Order: sequence, then structure tokens, then C-alpha cells
Amino acid sequence: MRTYKLTVAYDGSRYQGWQRQANTDRTIQGILERVISEAAGYTVEVNGSGRTDAGVHAEGQTASVVMAGRTPEDFFTATVNKRLPGDIRIRDAQLVKNGFHARKSAVGKVYEYHIDTGEKPDVFRRRYCFHLPCQLDLDAMRQAAGMLTGTHEFAGYTDKNDEKSTKRTIYDIMVSGQGSSVTIRYEGSGFLYHMVRILTGTLLEAGLHERTVESVGEALRTKDRRQAGFLAPAGGLFLKEVHYD
Amino acid sequence: MRTYKLTVAYDGSRYQGWQRQANTDRTIQGILERVISEAAGYTVEVNGSGRTDAGVHAEGQTASVVMAGRTPEDFFTATVNKRLPGDIRIRDAQLVKNGFHARKSAVGKVYEYHIDTGEKPDVFRRRYCFHLPCQLDLDAMRQAAGMLTGTHEFAGYTDKNDEKSTKRTIYDIMVSGQGSSVTIRYEGSGFLYHMVRILTGTLLEAGLHERTVESVGEALRTKDRRQAGFLAPAGGLFLKEVHYD
Repeated sequence: MRTYKLTVAYDGSRYQGWQRQANTDRTIQGILERVISEAAGYTVEVNGSGRTDAGVHAEGQTASVVMAGRTPEDFFTATVNKRLPGDIRIRDAQLVKNGFHARKSAVGKVYEYHIDTGEKPDVFRRRYCFHLPCQLDLDAMRQAAGMLTGTHEFAGYTDKNDEKSTKRTIYDIMVSGQGSSVTIRYEGSGFLYHMVRILTGTLLEAGLHERTVESVGEALRTKDRRQAGFLAPAGGLFLKEVHYD
Repeated sequence: MRTYKLTVAYDGSRYQGWQRQANTDRTIQGILERVISEAAGYTVEVNGSGRTDAGVHAEGQTASVVMAGRTPEDFFTATVNKRLPGDIRIRDAQLVKNGFHARKSAVGKVYEYHIDTGEKPDVFRRRYCFHLPCQLDLDAMRQAAGMLTGTHEFAGYTDKNDEKSTKRTIYDIMVSGQGSSVTIRYEGSGFLYHMVRILTGTLLEAGLHERTVESVGEALRTKDRRQAGFLAPAGGLFLKEVHYD
């Protein structure tokens, strides 16, 4: 029995998200499990570092899979890749210690959210960014971001209420702009359900002067979802990296 | 009666090419004609600067359309755009002189072809470039390109044999590389059916040292399609600009 860590990229446009579902074939986890099981000749389970929502993309999602025996790494990066649809790729496979679990062992994650502030939507970027043809005050967004970094209870910044703990640490939020492209990069210990998209909606409201910078911290303190911002659309979000010790 | 010049961008991935076809709704021309006719309340014909093949993209395709009367430009860029699918956009509409015809009035075109030489295919670029994980000799490609610029009979560089004239002028072919991205930019008076994709296949064979630089000119002189290179895949090709006097 051997455990492998997979690094997976996918274009989430066509999919119902990461998590396997009984009623659809269109999930990343479901397709990986089916294709790896078919290629291996026995049933395997693929555990991701976390779920991504329908339409969210990944450049460096990670997953762990336990194989019956030693498996050459190119079983994943060649044999399995050949059978996967073109919008899902295993970028890397590594033999790791048994007991490694892509979610439980993770110590940090990096997400990026892309906004296009150009006047007209771009036909080639429409699935990969949020088109918001408005002037954004990046300085206000950076000030608001400063209120969110650190260790906090993020109960106001999630759409799920049954988490054991809503305490998370955000190490850094970087807001950068180039021409009509605005990118928000999040580095943190981990993120709750919808958290990155709600953080993004909140920062965008600050950048549009639809809310004050202070109100962003207020939503943290009150733990009231209604005080945080809107849920930014899925297509702009990319899971970039998952970190392990 | 007024004539308008439209500049149109489209992601060709989902479509059977520009030209209207009786047996499918999935053509750019067909969709533009249907949507503009519905919005105008009468039937219009949309004439492109040329056909693009299935899977080919455009950032600046042009088309002419004759409307029954004066039509505000935002009829196209707002009303019609709202009804078009997200992967087809009218970027600009201009009232032009009657008699203007997007194909017959055109005096030049610019195409770009994108190649990704990275080891592994990129899930986000796979519909927008040709993945060729090989070392390309860009200098050999530039020398071969030099043999193709100028005014020539390009009968060997097309897949259609019933053109009245196969004489065309290529003003410039620029081969540029940055990391694993290689771009070939073509500027010319006009291009025959499949011509840009065959030119690209031929230049790539020179860049792979599968053919000599001289053989590229030889295929021009003999006018023999079999001496020119392979037809490069559609997804890497973008129609960038169409020029008028």
C-alpha cells in the first residue's frame, strides 16, 4: 500500500465542482476516481485538499490517493493523463509517506481572484475573470485587505454554519492592478466554504466605495454574514497552491 | 439604406467556423444574421471579410451589413451584444459609405498563430494554441519565413484549387518566442483557404529541422501542395485585424 500526492490543474468551466456527486459525472474528483480506478484495475479514492465550487479553476489543487502497491509516477502523469479530458491534467505525482492526506496534512493555501475592469467583456477571458467595468479604488481595497489579514473568526465570511471552527489565519492579501486586470492574491492557513469569494466581494465593495474600509472589519467582529459583501462569481477564482510541511 | 462596418471578436472553440451553413446553427455568420435580424425586425445579411475555419478565433474580424435605415451604433454594441452568446462580441460598429463590402473592400489582414512548446499541455491554453512540446529553431523559421514574404503564387499553400488567382502578397512574417510561447504573426494582402495554417505547418517543419529552409521556397515554385507542410491545427489561429483604405 503506497500513498501518492497528486498536483492537479483543471479548467473548472464545464464542471460541477471538485466533489464527487451521485447525480452527475461532471465533477473533478469523480472523473479522477473513475479514470485512475479503470487504469489501475481496482477502485481507488481520491481525496482533495478541499472542494472547489462549480466553475472555479485550479492550477495547483492537490489530492492524495492510496494505491495497492508501488506505482510508477508516470502511471499518473502519462497513462492516466492520456485518459483524462483535456481540461483536467495531473501535473505531478509523488510517492509520499503513508498517512499523508491532502486535506488534513495541508498547512496553507494560495488563491487568486481575477477581475477585468475593461469597458467590454473579453470573449477569451470571460470564463476566467469577473467582468466589472468600473473604476476600482485599489488603495481602499488594500486598506480593507489589511483589516482581514491575521488570525480571526471568519464566521461572517462563510455560507456554511456547521464548521467546528471558523478560526483561520490569513497571512497576506495582495491587490495588484495592470491595465484593466486586477488580481487579488490570498495566502492563508485555510479557507472556509465560499470564504475567498465573499472576501473578494467585500473588497470589491470597498474598491467601489459602496462600503467603508472600517465596515470590513465590522463584519469580522459581528460574525454576521449579512454585513460581509456579495459572493463574487466562481469563474474568476483559481486555486494556485497548497502547502505542506 | 445604410451600410455598417462591424468589428467582431469570437472564441471559435464551439463553432463550425464563420460561414453560415444550412445544417447547423453553430456558425458565427449564422448567429450574427439571426440575432441582428431579430433585433431589427427584418432580415439582414452579414458579410465577413473572409471565412474562418471551425475552431479558429478572431479578435478583429470585420463584417458589413446593410440596414434599412440609419441605425444607432449602440444598436449593435449594446442591443445586439446583449442577445449574442458570450463568446461572440461586436466590438465596434461604424456607419460607412454605401458600397463598402467587408471582403471586397479589404486591402490587408493580420493573423497570429500561437504555439506552446512547454513539456505539458496547459489546461487553460489548449483551445488557444497548438501544443508542440519540442525545441523549435526560431532562426530557421525566420529564414524560411523570409522565403515566403513578397508577392508570390501561393497555389502550393492552399487546399482549394478553384481560386481565380492564387497570387498574394505577404508583407511580413514575424516569429517571436518568449519562454515556451512561440507566436507567428502574418501580415498580407489576403490569404487563400487554409493558407495561414499551411504556412505555419511549413515553418514549424523548418523549425523542427524536418525540412530545409530552401524546400520552403521550392514548394512555392512547384505550386505543389504536397511539397508544403502540414495543416497546423485551427485552435492556434487568431484573425487579429482587417485593413481598409
